[in-house]
Amino acid sequence: MKLRRSERMVVISNYLVNNPHQLTSLNTFAENYGAAKSSISEDIAIIKKAFAEGGIGHIETVTGANGGVIFTPAISGTEAKEIAEELCQRLSESNRILPGGYIYLSDLLSTPSILKNIGRIIANAFKGEKIDTVMTVATKGVPLANAVANILNVPFVIVRRDLKITEGSTVSVNYASGSSDRIEKMFLSKRSLKPNSRVLIVDDFLKGGGTISGMVSLLREFDCSLVGVAVFADNAQEKRENLSYKSLLTVTDIDVKENKVDVRLGNIFDAVWTKK
Amino acid sequence: MKLRRSERMVVISNYLVNNPHQLTSLNTFAENYGAAKSSISEDIAIIKKAFAEGGIGHIETVTGANGGVIFTPAISGTEAKEIAEELCQRLSESNRILPGGYIYLSDLLSTPSILKNIGRIIANAFKGEKIDTVMTVATKGVPLANAVANILNVPFVIVRRDLKITEGSTVSVNYASGSSDRIEKMFLSKRSLKPNSRVLIVDDFLKGGGTISGMVSLLREFDCSLVGVAVFADNAQEKRENLSYKSLLTVTDIDVKENKVDVRLGNIFDAVWTKK
Repeated sequence: MKLRRSERMVVISNYLVNNPHQLTSLNTFAENYGAAKSSISEDIAIIKKAFAEGGIGHIETVTGANGGVIFTPAISGTEAKEIAEELCQRLSESNRILPGGYIYLSDLLSTPSILKNIGRIIANAFKGEKIDTVMTVATKGVPLANAVANILNVPFVIVRRDLKITEGSTVSVNYASGSSDRIEKMFLSKRSLKPNSRVLIVDDFLKGGGTISGMVSLLREFDCSLVGVAVFADNAQEKRENLSYKSLLTVTDIDVKENKVDVRLGNIFDAVWTKK
Repeated sequence: MKLRRSERMVVISNYLVNNPHQLTSLNTFAENYGAAKSSISEDIAIIKKAFAEGGIGHIETVTGANGGVIFTPAISGTEAKEIAEELCQRLSESNRILPGGYIYLSDLLSTPSILKNIGRIIANAFKGEKIDTVMTVATKGVPLANAVANILNVPFVIVRRDLKITEGSTVSVNYASGSSDRIEKMFLSKRSLKPNSRVLIVDDFLKGGGTISGMVSLLREFDCSLVGVAVFADNAQEKRENLSYKSLLTVTDIDVKENKVDVRLGNIFDAVWTKK
């Protein structure tokens, strides 16, 4: 494919955005688009500047024989807060309160444009950490884990609360289920997670933390280590000891009688973006 | 944000790729990037050409007061077949066979780069159809539905085989579960799907078709209509009457004794790309 410079830049930047955290040599671009390596180098310099100005992310150039470019997606503090504040509004809608004081979240967590943005914010909060795999628990955590894994360009694994034939051999652990006040079991397919993986745990809503603790004990069974825990929202009224996590949103009060939910920005905004 | 032309093109093309099937006025770009509308128009013309040449998709220009541009992602027949043929190889790996003749798929359906490509192929196969929502059943269908919904830029809904408090009121239907040879129930949150929606059903593996038929009867309960059914893989040995679907891959034989799986390209390649 032979392209003009301006067209080439569009195609290369699209490639980089679709292949984050992955080293691509300039020769690959030069061969694919019929251009000299020096021209590709100039293209990359312009794309790098555009990505920085547009808040899209950072392009790193690796020199040497095995060199090339790596694109790391980013999101500015301003954009992240704007997104989270809009989600605060959405989560505060009074018709979300379900009997028992639960909040209906499924519509937000199944809208691609929202998921993409949540993925960008969570991935950005763990920038610089080596992450091999994202872990979540079925079912509502899956689109979130998928969104974060898309940005990190790593696979995700799904812990299940039931046993399925199609998962093959599984490892199970017990966990304290907050909602039912019982000890239950969760399962992970044995072949789904490699030993020594560095894992980021992602979930939709954090109450007592029993599910997260269960996943952490699964990590031990698989000889894997925990990089961190990120949730879409947490409930500020719950007591949780020894659990460090980052949340996009914090629910401070659910008033079933008055049909009111109070939501504010989560602790993910405490440290990550305020440093600058 | 004031950008040079080449930088502006990179940022605009990134915006379009992240907001498919959505009308954006040229004025929005002009205001955001401090350029004249005529310059943006020229940028779009170049991006349009690059997207076409690079097999990224089509940009449509809508004229008039409410005009603007809409990006529709695409994938060429050559690229789609290359991707599917690689997946054929992966699916044929002998260590995927589980006791009972099941095939382990979870690793493929939790790798972002694979999911993105599957999403592109399925969305492309329904090009020109109006789709409001993608529907799937928990758990393994979720990442697939998510991937297709990302490309179509529409929400997805998750049908469940169990009842969860956090879903609020639900509607349930009975379906014939092939694997257990029993009648079971599936549930969909009442508020998750609007009446009169046009729905694309997506699932991972099609055997007897009982799950799909269940979802179709759910659509009737919600006064919605079926646009089509797409699956990652189907089993050619199963008999299915009155079920029209598109599959990426077809499993023609699972030999548990010899540890062999035979896989070929699915029927999605029969019509869609051969027309050209």
